[in-house]
Amino acid sequence: MTGNYKTVEWLGDRLLIIDQTRLPQHETYLELADHHQVAEAIRSLWVRGAPAIGVAAAYGIVLGVQKIESRDHKEFLKQYHTVAEELAGTRPTARNLFMAVERLNAAAEAAADILTARNAILAEAEKIQAEEIEATRKIAELGADLINDGDTIMTHCNTGPLATTGYGTALGVIIEAHRRGKRIQVLATETRPLCQGARLTAWELKKEHVPFRLITDSMAGYFLKEARVDMVITGADRIAKNGDTANKIGTYGLAVLAAANKVPFYIAAPSSTFDPELPTGDDIIIEERSPDEVTHQNGKRVAPEGIEACNPAFDVTPGGYITGFITETGIRKLP
Amino acid sequence: MTGNYKTVEWLGDRLLIIDQTRLPQHETYLELADHHQVAEAIRSLWVRGAPAIGVAAAYGIVLGVQKIESRDHKEFLKQYHTVAEELAGTRPTARNLFMAVERLNAAAEAAADILTARNAILAEAEKIQAEEIEATRKIAELGADLINDGDTIMTHCNTGPLATTGYGTALGVIIEAHRRGKRIQVLATETRPLCQGARLTAWELKKEHVPFRLITDSMAGYFLKEARVDMVITGADRIAKNGDTANKIGTYGLAVLAAANKVPFYIAAPSSTFDPELPTGDDIIIEERSPDEVTHQNGKRVAPEGIEACNPAFDVTPGGYITGFITETGIRKLP
Repeated sequence: MTGNYKTVEWLGDRLLIIDQTRLPQHETYLELADHHQVAEAIRSLWVRGAPAIGVAAAYGIVLGVQKIESRDHKEFLKQYHTVAEELAGTRPTARNLFMAVERLNAAAEAAADILTARNAILAEAEKIQAEEIEATRKIAELGADLINDGDTIMTHCNTGPLATTGYGTALGVIIEAHRRGKRIQVLATETRPLCQGARLTAWELKKEHVPFRLITDSMAGYFLKEARVDMVITGADRIAKNGDTANKIGTYGLAVLAAANKVPFYIAAPSSTFDPELPTGDDIIIEERSPDEVTHQNGKRVAPEGIEACNPAFDVTPGGYITGFITETGIRKLP
Repeated sequence: MTGNYKTVEWLGDRLLIIDQTRLPQHETYLELADHHQVAEAIRSLWVRGAPAIGVAAAYGIVLGVQKIESRDHKEFLKQYHTVAEELAGTRPTARNLFMAVERLNAAAEAAADILTARNAILAEAEKIQAEEIEATRKIAELGADLINDGDTIMTHCNTGPLATTGYGTALGVIIEAHRRGKRIQVLATETRPLCQGARLTAWELKKEHVPFRLITDSMAGYFLKEARVDMVITGADRIAKNGDTANKIGTYGLAVLAAANKVPFYIAAPSSTFDPELPTGDDIIIEERSPDEVTHQNGKRVAPEGIEACNPAFDVTPGGYITGFITETGIRKLP
């Protein structure tokens, strides 16, 4: 965790978040006062990154619960579920979102009365955040052991503190290796369409003084073939039992290009990203976002008017391409 | 060739070009009056695409020759070579540029006197353009035979009439298949950093009413794996004797992803793109352009200030990944 910015902070009756859509030009904080605002923040990517989405959704539910006035336990639970479903419906792919909602549901339902439920829901949300922070701390430590002095590491999208509320997953590993004094070089892909790499990863790496170069997504193959890249490491949004991994669109391409050039390809993700119910990646729902994100750049239209564009936000990398999963409990081959 | 826009047109004492950096928002024509302006037009990508660069450079030399006043044959040739070298130095990768300069050099040197040289240089420039137009017409025809009714075809960068002054190479093939009434679907990559796909290919496909969808470069793997793509087809900037092919950055990644998904990968290029002197792609000089093209989008900064970015404009696809080369003389396996 860096000391100088907060991704998600619980203020007791509001949720403080940094508006990630305005970075790196503007460091703006927003105070979200009800669960509708939190849902909007997740949908609009003011807060994003699978672990951070899970934490924000949990506090969003807490905010919703604070507004429930009914003293009837059954009615309370009914209203609770309306709130929880609104948060669960914000984005379809990240496992951590559903994990957080399931854990709060269990806490709400196990409580004998409304007061106990209110306390249990808040406690569970705080526990989720604490666990994410601790998990990413361990991931950063374990992963940094894999990185050698002088290594060049390629990464995709943003997986730093911004994405996790904690230390970061893939980017946490990279930052930890740098903090240990390893002389590393990072190649960060810009990650079109929303440029989380160019905007957020570049911002975090610059803050941490990690040497890096920004490239377009289309340059990844060139550098994997022509430069000496020692490792590709990305985060994940959902991991199936066979290791198939949903992550930001473009991850699958990097994995295939890494394999073609014999470069190890690692996924760094907390246990909350693994979906024990999912045998393979075939059933992962891939979010399709607005075509405007593709036809426009920086808020301005690039493509001609009146054309069709596709915008799947994630792809699925078959488990066979993944050298290892860096989790808080160790580095596993296939989960 | 489409009837409604001109890529490069010789006006006798000026060169008319469409400013490709302002498309698709503005259809602006520029009249270039001397060879310095033509060199600037090539460097600044007002005119781009390997075959179009060759034609523009040839006429640029003609403009330079028109300004030579010396009546001394030796002095004329000396000034000729200063002009030719300026044009040859505009961009380092496209074979067609050097081929055009070499042909004009030969014409200039073979002539017995200045008047003959002037006429021969102009005649050779016009011949180069006529040959490019005819070559791309044949490429479009031969390539269209490879496309079946109902096919989905992925393409990269821009290879239409804009890139060739003629019918186009890869995009010429696609447009010809559509004109023959084949019901095809195109997936066009936006081609960061300069978005020739989103700006130029989309503009040309829209004008021709070819059904297409725009995707980011990072989505190519997703569609090659999840959708039914029948063929990937791109142009080329230089082709070595062993088939190694330099083309727009990202082409190598598409070729590897096509191979991983058993999708045929074709290169469409006129003979002028093949370099008979070059045994392999290892010696192709890859142009490194300004990092601002990567840190900015649509003229606005996306990445933080003061960071490093890389901008190789081309990559080299090993010949082994290429299913076939569609040339004006037929479809070859390895050249």
